[in-house]
Amino acid sequence: MTKIESRVESDIDKLASQLQQLIRVPSVSAKKELTLIKCANLVSELMSKAGIKSELLKLDDNLEQIPPIVYGEVKSKGNPNGKTILFYNHYDVQPAEQIELWDDDPFSGKIDGNFIFGRGSTDDKGELITRIKAVEYFLKETGDVPCNIKFLIEGEEEIGSSHLEEYLTKYREKFSCDATIWEFGYVDEQERPIISLGMKGLLCVELHAKCSNADLHSSLAVLVENPAWRIVHALNTIRDESGLITIKNWYNEVRDFLPEELECIKHEDFDISDFKKTYGLSKIYNENDNELIKREYVGGVTANISGLFSGYIREGSKTVLPSKAMAKLDFRLVPDMIPKKQFQLLREHLDNNGFKDVQLKYLSGEPACRIPVNNEFGKLIEMCAREEYGKVIKSVSSAGTGPMWYFNEILKCPCVGIGCTYKYSRMHSPNEFVRIDLIKKTTKCIGSIIEEFGKSKDKN
Amino acid sequence: MTKIESRVESDIDKLASQLQQLIRVPSVSAKKELTLIKCANLVSELMSKAGIKSELLKLDDNLEQIPPIVYGEVKSKGNPNGKTILFYNHYDVQPAEQIELWDDDPFSGKIDGNFIFGRGSTDDKGELITRIKAVEYFLKETGDVPCNIKFLIEGEEEIGSSHLEEYLTKYREKFSCDATIWEFGYVDEQERPIISLGMKGLLCVELHAKCSNADLHSSLAVLVENPAWRIVHALNTIRDESGLITIKNWYNEVRDFLPEELECIKHEDFDISDFKKTYGLSKIYNENDNELIKREYVGGVTANISGLFSGYIREGSKTVLPSKAMAKLDFRLVPDMIPKKQFQLLREHLDNNGFKDVQLKYLSGEPACRIPVNNEFGKLIEMCAREEYGKVIKSVSSAGTGPMWYFNEILKCPCVGIGCTYKYSRMHSPNEFVRIDLIKKTTKCIGSIIEEFGKSKDKN
Repeated sequence: MTKIESRVESDIDKLASQLQQLIRVPSVSAKKELTLIKCANLVSELMSKAGIKSELLKLDDNLEQIPPIVYGEVKSKGNPNGKTILFYNHYDVQPAEQIELWDDDPFSGKIDGNFIFGRGSTDDKGELITRIKAVEYFLKETGDVPCNIKFLIEGEEEIGSSHLEEYLTKYREKFSCDATIWEFGYVDEQERPIISLGMKGLLCVELHAKCSNADLHSSLAVLVENPAWRIVHALNTIRDESGLITIKNWYNEVRDFLPEELECIKHEDFDISDFKKTYGLSKIYNENDNELIKREYVGGVTANISGLFSGYIREGSKTVLPSKAMAKLDFRLVPDMIPKKQFQLLREHLDNNGFKDVQLKYLSGEPACRIPVNNEFGKLIEMCAREEYGKVIKSVSSAGTGPMWYFNEILKCPCVGIGCTYKYSRMHSPNEFVRIDLIKKTTKCIGSIIEEFGKSKDKN
Repeated sequence: MTKIESRVESDIDKLASQLQQLIRVPSVSAKKELTLIKCANLVSELMSKAGIKSELLKLDDNLEQIPPIVYGEVKSKGNPNGKTILFYNHYDVQPAEQIELWDDDPFSGKIDGNFIFGRGSTDDKGELITRIKAVEYFLKETGDVPCNIKFLIEGEEEIGSSHLEEYLTKYREKFSCDATIWEFGYVDEQERPIISLGMKGLLCVELHAKCSNADLHSSLAVLVENPAWRIVHALNTIRDESGLITIKNWYNEVRDFLPEELECIKHEDFDISDFKKTYGLSKIYNENDNELIKREYVGGVTANISGLFSGYIREGSKTVLPSKAMAKLDFRLVPDMIPKKQFQLLREHLDNNGFKDVQLKYLSGEPACRIPVNNEFGKLIEMCAREEYGKVIKSVSSAGTGPMWYFNEILKCPCVGIGCTYKYSRMHSPNEFVRIDLIKKTTKCIGSIIEEFGKSKDKN
């Protein structure tokens, strides 16, 4: 066992307690609250304690409008001209709603055996702590780090990283690096880390219909158009029952898989029965075609209703004709779809199908990104992960979304995901948790990535 | 001016103050709360003060499950073998949600000039107070009433009068009467009372879809069916964009208008531009066909979405694949549609269109009812109303719903609507109000109906 590995074992209670500290600050970015800044300060403080030079970067002085980025840096004394690795993470979390579905307070950070519960326990505070601590252990055990290290911890990941592009552009020099470790990495049901080489894109929108200036008695439905019906009829034109998006030209920009991507997907894995059991599903799409499921996971394009509201939704009946109705949609995108262009297609689709009256609001958009399957940095991560976990899975793209595209475009660096996020750890759901055994393995793995990256000479 | 009319004028402040008392008890029947019983007791108390013998009738001892009916009775001393008139009203109200849309507390009963505001100010506490006070004025001015009088004040009208049929059956003898004055009557924008001879029926249901046991990350939408899409697709098969219900056999039982009903509808009135202006509408259905609008108002069948909910509905975006979705629908029915039969048609429709998985819940149902256009009691009301208001409109049926059918079936009596509900008084909407001038006119009109009914000899 290396010094770093022993330290991971002996220091785990302290790591867990610092993770609890982070969970206890409810840094929900969807609600613009001061807790976001509080959490940024706490991250900075934990970095300083670890020996990482840290500061808050701002776009403007109004931190309530645009949350700061926590920047961290450690220069290698022994290898100052060596490569620089950047850790990208986020300190914001998804809303905890519906809170009544949690077994405990979502922000208590309760520990139960191998599990730490709470919103953000895995996504992304659990991932973040493994990286801070890996660097801390190097500094405390060896007095140095094998390569140059930087941290970029943002506060808007869960609301589409609205200002990350601007931050990356403004602080391009500060963030310059040779490679980026992505904010998370899954570990599958067979304990294999999934090394992710890409992410899907995302377009989030709201549809609004309004028909009168106040809720009306529903007897007036003979005369007055119902906005909930407008939304239902409009939504129905967007997608068919099989999941196919029926917006004209929606799939035009979708790039076909490359041969090496298809080869890589073949070696990925998906356990249908385990997946169904975990989520209590009686069926899933394309259930009888495992290969298609894997390709959809990596490259499937979706239209998802994430929210729907109109009228009276409590107990009993209220004979009301609602004044307005609203739907929230998120569309997963793949290379080379451009969010703003897809948004335009959706607007045109509504107009051309008789829904000019339905208001369409752009909430956020991020393009998809994939790095080549044979990238050198990807191979280095694969090697370190295989050493720690025994088996690994290399994935062409995560099914989820993150702002990987901007790192590729602005910092010109490859991004690879590796981390401690157990696939069924209920990210974005009630009772989210992180597994302590995976935190330990991942912290060790991050340690060896830092070690190996310090030795590597070739530019990626 | 008669004694009763003078008393209406001199006593108006006391009437208003008693109406405020009633409004201040938030008797929302959709929420099973103790305030319902509190309101029943207050009504009974106001009756006693008026000289009306009053008691609470129960179906069982658990008043929290089934609210009591407030019964009231005054026997005519001078005309004990004369006819009996029954006033049907309700002390429950619609929910006040969304409360933030009210200018004042919905349960304050604020008076501003000619207006008294509050949930229930017009529907139905405003109507109720005119009837109690008309009887009170007779008793206090003359020491008697010209005909026998009964009151039936229920507590479940706003949730479909779920137990009224049972109450009418159990207490059939107690409620026996020669004619019923319905719980409300509209007054139109030209200050004409609308004498209503019928009501539409209503079927209230909920649709539920569930796809997983917890909200999931929306990246899983490639694999997992979204319950909000299930609800949208299912709803879309129920009605087309023009408002036509596309459920097989839905219109089968609809009875054609009789020639005398069509003649009566011709004399009804509908001011399109006034209606649009009042509700802030840019358009309404069948805008260019005033006669069709009037026929739809009286006999149109609708499918109305009164509530829609799924996923995350607050500010910003949450990339969630909801675990479940819900829609509330109300269907207006006309003679001779039977609610339970229509419910069955809807269930079969969902099954036959691939929505067996969508759960359908029966909330409540009431059949429609119309009395003949030439009914004698209707003519008596028309005469009294014309005397007070100058002009009147006779309506084949209200566009709204009430349990008129049960009175017809069980008590074998005609029901006619006459009252003080200004057509644009925002019943079921925020900032509901009642006009004090109409309260005065209506109380006087109820007085002369009681007077004339005491003189009438023929059975209806």
